[in-house]
Amino acid sequence: MKYPKKFKDLIESFETLPGVGPKTAERLAFFVIGKNNYDASKKMSIAIQDAIDMIKECSVCGMITDQDVCDICEDVDRENKLMVVENSKDVIAFEKTKAFKGKYHVLNGVVSPTNGVSPEDINIDKLLIRIQKEKFDEIIIATSSNIDGELTALYLNKVISNLGFKAYRIGYGLPASTDLEYVDEVTLIRSLEGKKEM
Amino acid sequence: MKYPKKFKDLIESFETLPGVGPKTAERLAFFVIGKNNYDASKKMSIAIQDAIDMIKECSVCGMITDQDVCDICEDVDRENKLMVVENSKDVIAFEKTKAFKGKYHVLNGVVSPTNGVSPEDINIDKLLIRIQKEKFDEIIIATSSNIDGELTALYLNKVISNLGFKAYRIGYGLPASTDLEYVDEVTLIRSLEGKKEM
Repeated sequence: MKYPKKFKDLIESFETLPGVGPKTAERLAFFVIGKNNYDASKKMSIAIQDAIDMIKECSVCGMITDQDVCDICEDVDRENKLMVVENSKDVIAFEKTKAFKGKYHVLNGVVSPTNGVSPEDINIDKLLIRIQKEKFDEIIIATSSNIDGELTALYLNKVISNLGFKAYRIGYGLPASTDLEYVDEVTLIRSLEGKKEM
Repeated sequence: MKYPKKFKDLIESFETLPGVGPKTAERLAFFVIGKNNYDASKKMSIAIQDAIDMIKECSVCGMITDQDVCDICEDVDRENKLMVVENSKDVIAFEKTKAFKGKYHVLNGVVSPTNGVSPEDINIDKLLIRIQKEKFDEIIIATSSNIDGELTALYLNKVISNLGFKAYRIGYGLPASTDLEYVDEVTLIRSLEGKKEM
């Protein structure tokens, strides 16, 4: 005796999700077919279909959008600054801070030799065209401070400099609400390098 | 700037799943719309729809099935024994052992005062009808050994006895491959009560 085929299909389908193993996939499948969850599961099925059909990357910046050009790229009131980020999540994170009122460019990835991702695999070509065309007052590279993020920042700085433009890197230092004793050495050194008058 | 509506719908939909919080839901949503995952995501959408449309409970035993009556209930070669379990997962677990060749009855739940589940909310009525009709040689109650499982077993034993039938409870004791020092007291006491000649 095994599970019915359509149920096994459902389990296998959930197993393709990141961080979902066979046990979790089985649990999710039982939840989905639960008597009280019919409506929610139907909605989920439609939500997946709609999302894969209608969500695409903004043709200007690469941010996820359901239009051809996203709201930020369409917004004429935005400052003429550009922040380069790894993914759409980062745009939302910076937007929540309300500290940046410029535009974004979403790389949709990072240069990563270990994962076989080279510069031409991510959204850099459009970035270089934009930089030359839109003549931003400031370009800030806001990739992560991990190895791939730093490598990508270095690469971007090189190609942007080659075009005759200047790029900034977001500041390094102590994260907010952190006990100094738990902060690693590299962060401490960088926090000293980035000291500011009070 | 917020996520496009169809993307937010997808995140919210994943948030309804057990054990999936906002951060995980967001991660899953990004995965689903990932360029290389279109086919897998389309399959997932269809798998959910098919499962909620086609998977139902066996009209005899309550096990999930895509037919009216499940394969086990249809199988005339099965022994005339009955094992009562909490859910379909337990059937698969016992079937894997190949140690039981009888039939099953799936309660699809347990009696649980704390969760407001009373005997009439689970698949007990059909069980009592089956017991009277099918005259099993042996009835084994294989609910969990947690509070609700034990309570359900006690309740079932009472109603089955009232009908003039005898019920067995699956054995208690040491789980396989376990260091004795990590086993709780109740299990140790039960393992003594359940001692067997070697």
